[in-house]
Amino acid sequence: MDTFNLGDFTLRSGVTLPNASLAYTTFGTLNAARSNAILFPNFLGGAPEALETWIGEGRPLDPAEYFIILPGHFGLLPSSSPSNTPAPFDRGAFPAVHIADDVIAQRRLLSEQFGIDQLELVLGWSVGALQTYEWAVRYPEVVKRVASIAGAPQPSPWTRLWLRSVLEEPLTGDAAYHGGFYPDAQSMQAGVRRMAHGTAVTLPPLGFYREGEEAWKGLGFSSMEDFIIRFWEAFWLPHDPNDIIAQARKARAADPSGGGDLTEALGSIKARTVVVAFTGDPMFPPAECARDAERIPGALYREVVSNFGHLATFALSEADVKTVDGILRDLLAT
Amino acid sequence: MDTFNLGDFTLRSGVTLPNASLAYTTFGTLNAARSNAILFPNFLGGAPEALETWIGEGRPLDPAEYFIILPGHFGLLPSSSPSNTPAPFDRGAFPAVHIADDVIAQRRLLSEQFGIDQLELVLGWSVGALQTYEWAVRYPEVVKRVASIAGAPQPSPWTRLWLRSVLEEPLTGDAAYHGGFYPDAQSMQAGVRRMAHGTAVTLPPLGFYREGEEAWKGLGFSSMEDFIIRFWEAFWLPHDPNDIIAQARKARAADPSGGGDLTEALGSIKARTVVVAFTGDPMFPPAECARDAERIPGALYREVVSNFGHLATFALSEADVKTVDGILRDLLAT
Repeated sequence: MDTFNLGDFTLRSGVTLPNASLAYTTFGTLNAARSNAILFPNFLGGAPEALETWIGEGRPLDPAEYFIILPGHFGLLPSSSPSNTPAPFDRGAFPAVHIADDVIAQRRLLSEQFGIDQLELVLGWSVGALQTYEWAVRYPEVVKRVASIAGAPQPSPWTRLWLRSVLEEPLTGDAAYHGGFYPDAQSMQAGVRRMAHGTAVTLPPLGFYREGEEAWKGLGFSSMEDFIIRFWEAFWLPHDPNDIIAQARKARAADPSGGGDLTEALGSIKARTVVVAFTGDPMFPPAECARDAERIPGALYREVVSNFGHLATFALSEADVKTVDGILRDLLAT
Repeated sequence: MDTFNLGDFTLRSGVTLPNASLAYTTFGTLNAARSNAILFPNFLGGAPEALETWIGEGRPLDPAEYFIILPGHFGLLPSSSPSNTPAPFDRGAFPAVHIADDVIAQRRLLSEQFGIDQLELVLGWSVGALQTYEWAVRYPEVVKRVASIAGAPQPSPWTRLWLRSVLEEPLTGDAAYHGGFYPDAQSMQAGVRRMAHGTAVTLPPLGFYREGEEAWKGLGFSSMEDFIIRFWEAFWLPHDPNDIIAQARKARAADPSGGGDLTEALGSIKARTVVVAFTGDPMFPPAECARDAERIPGALYREVVSNFGHLATFALSEADVKTVDGILRDLLAT
């Protein structure tokens, strides 16, 4: 993973983060015309490896054809985050960050590091999709195509409530939290595990755990408890709680209109856009994604009939992967 | 509200609870033959008033015709609960209680207090329905009819996970909890509110909070936040946290087969049974309720097309109330 140093970076909140940085990984080679770049921002808590599963020869995101950049975002290590920022902005004092800050920093990475002024595609899953919408609205002259996958321009009221009560509150309510100045992440482990259980309840689609269905079996887990520990706790435990909170609050505040009229902002999108939703995703339900697509000129809406709902983000099913690959291939061909 | 003193009551766990008691309320008059009784156990955290909305002249639960008993259950005040039991079984030391304990205590209330050996109907919502199944299996010679409404013989794997991670863990994980020996319920208020937020995320059906739908508006709330505070926090705050935990653990362990074969237990039910489910109820989904009904000889299954899912338990919609009244009227007529 590489690091792009942003220097003293003034956030939308007005606070200047000294020595801010954005991590990134690239695949493929930038052509001479700098016209074959794809940007693929990450989701909340996403490791770059989670996105790398979508890249491969013969796949739509083919490194033989495209220069694919996986940029980090604030709050997700090793990009500037509460857990790696020195005082006075360390830990519980890390400033509020916005999706717009991520996208402005990513834009600088592209132009200053690579001289890129045009993107063949910006795509993202979930919180990555929040960033793609910000890209499409903020830099319409840069972005040719957009794919929002299991995402939206902003989280729904339910999803905002979820970010607060399922992600933040088990952490901020932990006895060790102390306004974010806990001695170390280990002391917060019980809270992180409680939070993990909340995600295990709320993220899989209804029926996932049902007797006779037990979808975790097909994923190689020996029991529901095994799935909860080795999938959910294992996913969250490596993350510093302040970092999770920073990302959750950032996602909650996502708004590509910057406090203006969202319908107008979406109406201004020039990119060829596809909005992809998954059956049973409570976070970004098909009905809501279809409505988002209607507000974007010429956007396509596609529902992937899936057994995994929002868990499709983890590329758990070969069928889902094939369907999404097909959608991306069609989009890149237009 | 009246109190039935159970004396020294030996629980299924083997522990004897001294001076145990069950609260109850009655409506109507027991006839000379003692043949017009209906039993209506309550849900988790339910006030008797919540059930009283289903009782009225001209309604199926007509006090002019039936003697209707609303019994309490362990963990729900003022019946024996962690918060009203003296040492050595007070607070965090209150013994594990089972749905079978509730039903055995309710059976004693009927026979010892009223000489009742026959019930025209046992009905219950949610955790009340867990009790109705226990009744139907344990006392087939007593129960003529059963209505399980937004309930099941036992909670599904998802619902068991929900009881643990949404109800228990925000409480047991609170800094003030101390194994249940917090100084007073006020000191646990932050945990109860966090728990209330978890129920606000998970209980309403998908779409309840959606922009343009905002079902809380029709219930007289001024905003989603207003609904979360005045509906959810207001519902949970009066309850002692140990009492909530006792009821949640009891619900999790519900099993009318007593650790045996559930299909066989349900197959032994003699009562005329109707299983009522609500569209969008994640707690007791229609697909699962339909499957329960298939395991009970001659049972009817009815799905109520509702906008409220599990919240139908709170009788929020006139349409839902009418539909349920119709189902109960038909059942009582058979």
